[in-house]
Amino acid sequence: MIDPDAAAAVPDVERDAAGEKLSDVRGLGVGAPVLAFDVGGTDIKSALFDADGTALGLRRTPTPIADGDRTQVLLERLEVLAAELRAAHPDVVPQAAGLVVPGIVDAEAGVGVFASNLGWHDSPLRDLASARLGLPVAFDHDVRAASWAERRLGGARDYADAVVLVIGTGIAGALLVGGVPYTAGGYAGEIGHSPIADGPICPCGARGCLEAVASAGAIARRYREATGIAPDGAKDVIARAAAGDEVAAEIWNSALDALTMSLAQLTAVVAPQAVVIGGGLSRAGGALFDELRRRLADRLSFHRIPVLVPAELSGNAGLLGAALRARELT
Amino acid sequence: MIDPDAAAAVPDVERDAAGEKLSDVRGLGVGAPVLAFDVGGTDIKSALFDADGTALGLRRTPTPIADGDRTQVLLERLEVLAAELRAAHPDVVPQAAGLVVPGIVDAEAGVGVFASNLGWHDSPLRDLASARLGLPVAFDHDVRAASWAERRLGGARDYADAVVLVIGTGIAGALLVGGVPYTAGGYAGEIGHSPIADGPICPCGARGCLEAVASAGAIARRYREATGIAPDGAKDVIARAAAGDEVAAEIWNSALDALTMSLAQLTAVVAPQAVVIGGGLSRAGGALFDELRRRLADRLSFHRIPVLVPAELSGNAGLLGAALRARELT
Repeated sequence: MIDPDAAAAVPDVERDAAGEKLSDVRGLGVGAPVLAFDVGGTDIKSALFDADGTALGLRRTPTPIADGDRTQVLLERLEVLAAELRAAHPDVVPQAAGLVVPGIVDAEAGVGVFASNLGWHDSPLRDLASARLGLPVAFDHDVRAASWAERRLGGARDYADAVVLVIGTGIAGALLVGGVPYTAGGYAGEIGHSPIADGPICPCGARGCLEAVASAGAIARRYREATGIAPDGAKDVIARAAAGDEVAAEIWNSALDALTMSLAQLTAVVAPQAVVIGGGLSRAGGALFDELRRRLADRLSFHRIPVLVPAELSGNAGLLGAALRARELT
Repeated sequence: MIDPDAAAAVPDVERDAAGEKLSDVRGLGVGAPVLAFDVGGTDIKSALFDADGTALGLRRTPTPIADGDRTQVLLERLEVLAAELRAAHPDVVPQAAGLVVPGIVDAEAGVGVFASNLGWHDSPLRDLASARLGLPVAFDHDVRAASWAERRLGGARDYADAVVLVIGTGIAGALLVGGVPYTAGGYAGEIGHSPIADGPICPCGARGCLEAVASAGAIARRYREATGIAPDGAKDVIARAAAGDEVAAEIWNSALDALTMSLAQLTAVVAPQAVVIGGGLSRAGGALFDELRRRLADRLSFHRIPVLVPAELSGNAGLLGAALRARELT
């Protein structure tokens, strides 16, 4: 059983990697109580959703780091978090748990195929988590689960064919086809790692990935590299561009061009009705959305230009997606 | 009724725009007899498929040109062709007809939304053809129908998630998702009109379309423009490149780079198991397929690289797709 001291030792994280505070979670609606875990490279979001669909005990804790088998350490941590949530809310009895993770995920098989920053290869995470938690576990890819939450509860509500794009430290994407996430064995939707130019080399090893040019992380990094000044995130670079800083303007302009190129490709080939954009960069508002709309219309011709809408579930879309998936098991 | 002189006046076309002769048609398999029409900008392929699935009376005739309402002239021509086929094979009684056309097609509604070279806008072609032919008509997009034929009978047989790419005068594409063509209201699959660079301006009005750089037509045109020499098609440019012609090598190299860029985008975002390549350029064999495989692997990293396979149904995939769709009505 769980050592209460170990449990008490799990610290909370004040802000995530992108500097976001934990925000309010939209309700799931009425249904079975479920546990939900959104595991990322740096932190884990966890909560217990009650029968009304309210998130109880929502917190963000660091993803445990360990030499050797990180999967066992992670599972142990999930068990601790689950025990704490159950102990704090003894009257809410979860019927299932949802677990979503990044990387290449084979949701059908319940396998984490690969995640560069979490260290597993072909790990049967669904069954391992189920054994640890003593509950049926729904297992999915974090961004596809997020797209499912945006489809059910958020910005993709009105669009059966949509792309959900999360532009933050990196750029992640998921395709909704006919109203459901399209997986292609776990490989679909890697918009951040699709090439839009001949360079630069991306940390993933490919050439010219969108993420290396146009993520919020890349925009801040490129400005720092060009000027020696560390900006306060992409938001600061955009503000500097608006204020007449030519280096900032050039970096922001090239990021918009790269995003436009990717959106134009998506429009021509996948033709979604809508692109739902979330993540830190989406808070740039009109500076992002109006510019992308204008540039996209300018680049294309007979194509059906998708509606560009902000994501509505903020950083909690993955967690909500995990909870929705868990409820589907009950 | 049909004027027999008008019928007799329909000439046959020896070779299509890409210089291809009419080739043998693969059998459909056993089923109801059906008529099939594949209408293109320059010619119409038509045939009567019998209960064994053999194509009878297969021919290629010019798409009629007329001022004013070209749709009525086209429908009249389809009626003539159907009458001739029925007259030549009185013992084969078609139960339905399949009609496939290019452009933006809303197959579900039976509407030709738009086709730049055929002159219709929001034309209810399915019902119009059905009234003319006195048969139930299955209506679809030519390349999506071709992809369906490749899926059922050809190169995509083993792949539920595939992209079919036809590289000829232009570049057309269709996505198979979960084994069936994905339409997005008729807008999906426009790989030829997806941007891969900042230029040139494409005749469609968009900027940097793949088709303007890498279609067989563009390769021949670019060589002619660069040298004043009219090559014998893209095949000739590829042969000249192999023989040391630097201009030809540069053009072929940039076409391969552009195709690689599009395939890399497809791989990252749609992640098909296979890309089935047909059209005139696919006959370049290893010069195309081996180079694309090498360059694609070189560009990407963790992605699932699709198998690249030749289309198997040659120029008849659209016609076979029309026949398959017609049989689905019986």
